[in-house]
Amino acid sequence: MEKIKFVNHEFVNKAEALIPQLHETVIRPAHIVEVQQDEAAFQGWRVDALESAEELPGKIFKQGDSFTLDFGDHQVGYLTLAIQNVASNADAPLRLKLTFGEMPCEIGENFEDYNGWLSRSWLQDEIVTVDILPGEVTLPRRYTFRYVKIEVLSTSIRYHVSFPDVYCTAISSGDAAVVQALPAHMPEHLKEMDRIAIKTLQNCMHTVFEDGPKRDRRLWIGDLRLQALANYETFRSDDLVKRCLYLFAGMPLEDGQVGGCLYEKPAPFVDDIYLYDYALFFAATLYDYYEATGDKETLQELWPVAKLQIEIGLKRLDERGIVKDDETWYCFLDWHEQLNKQGGAQAVLIYSMRRGLKLALAVMDTEAAEKIASQLERVIDAAKMYLWDEASQFFVSGEQRQVSWATQIWMVLAEVFGQEENAKLLERLAAYPAAIEMSTPYLYHHYIEALILSNRKDEALIQMNAYWGEMMKDGADTFWELYNPKDKKLSPYGSNLVNSYCHAWSCTPTYFIRKYYLS
Amino acid sequence: MEKIKFVNHEFVNKAEALIPQLHETVIRPAHIVEVQQDEAAFQGWRVDALESAEELPGKIFKQGDSFTLDFGDHQVGYLTLAIQNVASNADAPLRLKLTFGEMPCEIGENFEDYNGWLSRSWLQDEIVTVDILPGEVTLPRRYTFRYVKIEVLSTSIRYHVSFPDVYCTAISSGDAAVVQALPAHMPEHLKEMDRIAIKTLQNCMHTVFEDGPKRDRRLWIGDLRLQALANYETFRSDDLVKRCLYLFAGMPLEDGQVGGCLYEKPAPFVDDIYLYDYALFFAATLYDYYEATGDKETLQELWPVAKLQIEIGLKRLDERGIVKDDETWYCFLDWHEQLNKQGGAQAVLIYSMRRGLKLALAVMDTEAAEKIASQLERVIDAAKMYLWDEASQFFVSGEQRQVSWATQIWMVLAEVFGQEENAKLLERLAAYPAAIEMSTPYLYHHYIEALILSNRKDEALIQMNAYWGEMMKDGADTFWELYNPKDKKLSPYGSNLVNSYCHAWSCTPTYFIRKYYLS
Repeated sequence: MEKIKFVNHEFVNKAEALIPQLHETVIRPAHIVEVQQDEAAFQGWRVDALESAEELPGKIFKQGDSFTLDFGDHQVGYLTLAIQNVASNADAPLRLKLTFGEMPCEIGENFEDYNGWLSRSWLQDEIVTVDILPGEVTLPRRYTFRYVKIEVLSTSIRYHVSFPDVYCTAISSGDAAVVQALPAHMPEHLKEMDRIAIKTLQNCMHTVFEDGPKRDRRLWIGDLRLQALANYETFRSDDLVKRCLYLFAGMPLEDGQVGGCLYEKPAPFVDDIYLYDYALFFAATLYDYYEATGDKETLQELWPVAKLQIEIGLKRLDERGIVKDDETWYCFLDWHEQLNKQGGAQAVLIYSMRRGLKLALAVMDTEAAEKIASQLERVIDAAKMYLWDEASQFFVSGEQRQVSWATQIWMVLAEVFGQEENAKLLERLAAYPAAIEMSTPYLYHHYIEALILSNRKDEALIQMNAYWGEMMKDGADTFWELYNPKDKKLSPYGSNLVNSYCHAWSCTPTYFIRKYYLS
Repeated sequence: MEKIKFVNHEFVNKAEALIPQLHETVIRPAHIVEVQQDEAAFQGWRVDALESAEELPGKIFKQGDSFTLDFGDHQVGYLTLAIQNVASNADAPLRLKLTFGEMPCEIGENFEDYNGWLSRSWLQDEIVTVDILPGEVTLPRRYTFRYVKIEVLSTSIRYHVSFPDVYCTAISSGDAAVVQALPAHMPEHLKEMDRIAIKTLQNCMHTVFEDGPKRDRRLWIGDLRLQALANYETFRSDDLVKRCLYLFAGMPLEDGQVGGCLYEKPAPFVDDIYLYDYALFFAATLYDYYEATGDKETLQELWPVAKLQIEIGLKRLDERGIVKDDETWYCFLDWHEQLNKQGGAQAVLIYSMRRGLKLALAVMDTEAAEKIASQLERVIDAAKMYLWDEASQFFVSGEQRQVSWATQIWMVLAEVFGQEENAKLLERLAAYPAAIEMSTPYLYHHYIEALILSNRKDEALIQMNAYWGEMMKDGADTFWELYNPKDKKLSPYGSNLVNSYCHAWSCTPTYFIRKYYLS
């Protein structure tokens, strides 16, 4: 935190004035279910519906009993339990354990065995002692879940309990009523993919665009950029994008870099994580916002911050005009241990400078426009000269001249080559198994975008179905942070329990469908 | 609950209008301590002070660390923790475990090994997940404790925590400012015993006189009677006694019996426990209240309820005029598995009828007075004829003609014999080891009262010192529900963890000291 330079209170205040209202929806569980170990099921856990949740009020639970409720869909909100003592008054408090799961694995596996390297505190369970019965208890924390397991740890020898009512007050700042229906002719599976993508976006929309409502529950600029794109096609909560931009702009790091992520509570503050690509995306996100809204006032106010990100990005160039690679820098691009970031970073720089140039012209900042234009030529030329490998016909990255999907995809998006050449590059890539693969929906998004940009809309749709469509077959209610059809327990965190199963960067199928496939 | 006959709403409303204000006092911990196993220490647990709690704010705790705070005295109230992330912002929630103990054993022993037959839910521990750091967390439940163990279960790899402030907002409806200081000449150990007794009473005084603030946290008439006596000498919260009387009177059981205990929440209701002696104590408690306050309006309104308790008590007499004994009835007297209740019950009936008679005369209920007077003669005569054992010179109880402390003490308090004879009876009892012994401070109270009534004030003082004085030597901050100097882990519940260590029926040394030993 010592890296934070200063806070632009005017910007932060502007952001705080834009805190949206949260819409509440009361959701009751659909079924009483049992989560069973099953090697054939996704991640090894199957859910069997036992009976309708309407049967719950009539059931009596003794000390040691437990049951699991299925809310039928992914929820983000607050849980309320109406609890009734049975057979006698409650002559001792009631002790319950509640376990919340986005996925069956979270109900089936024991959190005490968790050994991932993200904090165990992300796993959602509580032991609750209820002093007054009968009573209604609303847990104070927000949970993200489809399933809730309720274990009756302690009653007394005199009483049992029943649950006359259990419900979730689901919240989101996204107003579903605003989203337009897809045309009737749209294939059902695309309608369904669109619905799930919108649900993903909606459940990440709170007082900021969160990356994931279970984890990390905060604003990351990489996620924001994609959420904003999906938002312009759906919820049109454009003021929420504006709020997020002002938050990032208002709390830069020590040299003016936009931080990678930020927190809203106890008061807005930025994390000290700086990611090369994410900072540059401030310019790209501002560009998308201006394109979608035409809000010139915001553009004018935030343009200096965007410009600074490009200047900072350019400072990392070596004498050849190539982004320096070393052991210590951070650039995200994708979750992949072996991925070298140099080539992708170069491309993200170009991609962002192209958008920065348009913004400079829009605000008539001629000096900046000229400077960006001349530098843009330099970094594109350098990319072609030093990162293009004639022999393999791929862009390479780092000293080891690594070929990766990330580098090719971003070079396509950076439009270093023309459309036809890009299309061929992507075709070669698909036929080159040695390339470092894609790992996250985040990079898959950019792959789809790259295919569309290369006039390969049919292939883009095939790839969307092969990836998000597979998630759907594996039971996704909302789209996931991580997914590899070949390794379904994949987690970069050492445990798939802590993966986020409703993740902003996975919400863009609705953006693609609505932007590119409506006609 | 099906045994409840009706609710007298007028009475209950009168009681609810008397809900007292709770006084708040902020208490900060005194020391950071360590609880160590030590066979020589009370219950096998010793407390070592490590350093002043003023050192706490400067300490940094990592995942897996823990510490124990000693608040220096017994507290009933709400815990607030100010928590600061250290080394980095908190990029994941914080998971803490808090364990509250009235006594060191509750900190030293593992609650998961608890196997008492009262609910595990009485043991005071919580797992708390804190989503926002830095922050101040006030736990919503009320706790009863001197010690709090705080375990840092989960942070993240990036941050540790410190605790800039920890405090308890202690609550009681007893106003300590009202209590008069003892005269300077009073011996120090009696002043100290008085102080601890008052603290015991104070920590049981909330919106009713609770039996114990850790357990059962409710209004029992047996405790109320003694609390009221102590209250008249100290806090003078006479309206709280009145409130409690109206609650019992307003919610009788099916045949009009006053219930043994009642609850305030979610709305006032009586437990279906009927105890022969406790119901009769409604008359005795009303008598004491009237003696202390002269509040004739309340007496007149509640007299019919008191009268009914005596009528119900009399219905249990057999043709000889002796309280029937069988396997199924409930009469408390003391916690002792072998204790036969017949003799004590007979004495409690006589004791209560004597007071009932005075109340009947005070409200000029001549008919009742005459009836009680005539029946009183009958039950006293029957006691002398059928329960007095000429050979052993003791009162006996039940078919086995059991000799117990409880029976003798209550026969003394019932004044079946005169003062001199009673004094001799108590002397014989002390020299008769075969008698079923006393088990609780509740019965010890009655022993002290019996000694004083028998003009044995010096011996009463010796016995008070031998019992409550021993508790003090064993470290009592407040007087305990259960204490046996010969068996310090005594519990009628299968585990001393669940014993109440601040218990109303143990608070009467202040009553004795102030009523009988001031001059």
